[in-house]
Amino acid sequence: MQDEIFLREAFRLAKEGMDAGQGGPFGAVIAKDGQIVGKGFNQVTSTNDPTAHAEVVAIRDACRRLNSFQLTGCTLYTSCEPCPMCLGAIYWARPERIVYGCLHSDAARAGFDDQFIYRELDKSRESRSIPMQQLLPDEAWTVFGQWLEKQDKIRY
Amino acid sequence: MQDEIFLREAFRLAKEGMDAGQGGPFGAVIAKDGQIVGKGFNQVTSTNDPTAHAEVVAIRDACRRLNSFQLTGCTLYTSCEPCPMCLGAIYWARPERIVYGCLHSDAARAGFDDQFIYRELDKSRESRSIPMQQLLPDEAWTVFGQWLEKQDKIRY
Repeated sequence: MQDEIFLREAFRLAKEGMDAGQGGPFGAVIAKDGQIVGKGFNQVTSTNDPTAHAEVVAIRDACRRLNSFQLTGCTLYTSCEPCPMCLGAIYWARPERIVYGCLHSDAARAGFDDQFIYRELDKSRESRSIPMQQLLPDEAWTVFGQWLEKQDKIRY
Repeated sequence: MQDEIFLREAFRLAKEGMDAGQGGPFGAVIAKDGQIVGKGFNQVTSTNDPTAHAEVVAIRDACRRLNSFQLTGCTLYTSCEPCPMCLGAIYWARPERIVYGCLHSDAARAGFDDQFIYRELDKSRESRSIPMQQLLPDEAWTVFGQWLEKQDKIRY
């Protein structure tokens, strides 16, 4: 029952953001112990931030409020199944579970083709549509070596 | 030659952020027409933002400066191959190409296991380690229907 209430709040945010011309029709809510601790709607076009998907905005909001870079014990409610960027962000933030409304395939019908990105991630580096090239691998490793030696590092 | 210069700047940023206690040892630079238009280092632990990977910080910085949510004609230089979240962000921002130093496998040796996230994305929803549940799919579609009808929408 509570799941439905929080998910409907994500739907409401999706419409609020869309109606306000903030971005695409997506909303998200993060709840912990029955309370909303973060929320967001898509703001890609209004803030010129391609990473400002509803889930990312809500994760950043919740982490700021919880004063933590981890969403332990939280549930993320999103109006639509997360795209690969958002799913990646979710795995880094580590909430307990995800509740979503629409499927990817619904988003695609509405003009948002994140299936394309899922397919690209599945490809080898060489066959992706954005070319990827490795350079200076030995120099690149230096800083990782220094990280491994670092005494006061904070893991995440 | 220019590629090496910009990639070395990404390495320098990785070390700068690490030494300043900002987060993990990762740096990124975005260049367009031979000029740096965005830069970033990892700030996850210092800003309590699990999405503040070097690439995401650099993309947000470049988009703010270019006043656009698209990185058309840009190259992204990153000290390490992007994680799935960052690769998703890159696909949404659409730079022309990516140049990177370390491989995923190097990041894993340094304690950053984004291979785990790549493997999770490959799984079906049902078998992922963070449970995903669909609810209220018909209600969820409503806002997509309204988006399709919307006359003044900005696509991204």
